[in-house]
Amino acid sequence: MRQDENRQIKISGAVINRLPRYYRYLKQLLSEKRLRISSLELARLMKVTASQIRQDLNCFGGFGQQGYGYNVKLLYTKISEILGATEDYTAIIVGAGNLGHALAAAATFKNRGVRLKALFDVNPAVIGTEVNGHPTYSMDTLEEYCRENTVDIAVLTVPKLEAVKVGRLLAANTNIKGIWNFTGIELDVPENISVQNVHLGDKLMTLCYDIKTKNEVLG
Amino acid sequence: MRQDENRQIKISGAVINRLPRYYRYLKQLLSEKRLRISSLELARLMKVTASQIRQDLNCFGGFGQQGYGYNVKLLYTKISEILGATEDYTAIIVGAGNLGHALAAAATFKNRGVRLKALFDVNPAVIGTEVNGHPTYSMDTLEEYCRENTVDIAVLTVPKLEAVKVGRLLAANTNIKGIWNFTGIELDVPENISVQNVHLGDKLMTLCYDIKTKNEVLG
Repeated sequence: MRQDENRQIKISGAVINRLPRYYRYLKQLLSEKRLRISSLELARLMKVTASQIRQDLNCFGGFGQQGYGYNVKLLYTKISEILGATEDYTAIIVGAGNLGHALAAAATFKNRGVRLKALFDVNPAVIGTEVNGHPTYSMDTLEEYCRENTVDIAVLTVPKLEAVKVGRLLAANTNIKGIWNFTGIELDVPENISVQNVHLGDKLMTLCYDIKTKNEVLG
Repeated sequence: MRQDENRQIKISGAVINRLPRYYRYLKQLLSEKRLRISSLELARLMKVTASQIRQDLNCFGGFGQQGYGYNVKLLYTKISEILGATEDYTAIIVGAGNLGHALAAAATFKNRGVRLKALFDVNPAVIGTEVNGHPTYSMDTLEEYCRENTVDIAVLTVPKLEAVKVGRLLAANTNIKGIWNFTGIELDVPENISVQNVHLGDKLMTLCYDIKTKNEVLG
């Protein structure tokens, strides 16, 4: 897993993996105009232990004042900075099928400070259409687009059979820094490009496990 | 997190969360007709340490013979059983939009031993259509369908605003045992129903973090 490589940079991969969840809850609290929250209340809300929260947030200095709890805005800002949500990264979606459309239509990018710029596909039926205000261009223009525009992240939602080829093309002919890979296929790209592989089915299996064990306990 | 509740059942939530990844790699090895694999080779393949693998697999007895490595078929079968992939669970997708279609079209369910039976939606344009051989029915018939058919899992891909309502309806009027929740909204369902919440954007943030730290190291 790529995150393991970040261990040298002080914060453990396990904590980093938990930060996006803190980010979501703090964003929600912020939208509700909450100024402060105790580790105990945050723990109840997030269904983890208060000591886990204190431990996680102490990793980077801790933002809590004994007896006052955490400053919601300060904590949110700090976590945003750590995660890179304040970097104004830009993204394109490569593969404008159902999944590409679903991702483009959701607030997934905007909510995390990433600017989605365009989609790319080979299908003439979708080239020229807009999804949530984002244009869909021909795959033939992908390299040219990436030369003329700043693109940090490519979201890979092409069919499995195209995954390795498109990954290599992105690595060789563009300046992208990261790939959010939904294809289920291991990409063959150099180490300097970050990759996050998404395997949706993993969570389906955890759900099955949970159902099975609950029924064993109940039955 | 729901998994925490499984701690009493011997295997830790952290190990359970890693098992679907083992499952994927072993399935691949099996399809390549591999009979045995050493913890060292599996470690290299999965980019984790051999000691992590030995530790994880020892949790439930260990399947390795010193000097012979793991029996791929045996390990795959055991992990399938633990995760519930051999339970023949059935699923429906509630919300046949882009994400619902993407999930129905992929091999996500079949590859994990879950039988997808149908999709449900309110949109007349998709009701009556088929996705990958699975019929799409009207939401009005959801409860009746669940009474007359065995449905273990509901995959929730309805819009955010409908999430809580549909979650409650499923909990109150059907016998489903688990919800795979893609809505990003916390559901209000009783404890006996397992829930796995998917927040796709969390991985996008981990990717941003990885890009940021790599550039800090390089720059």
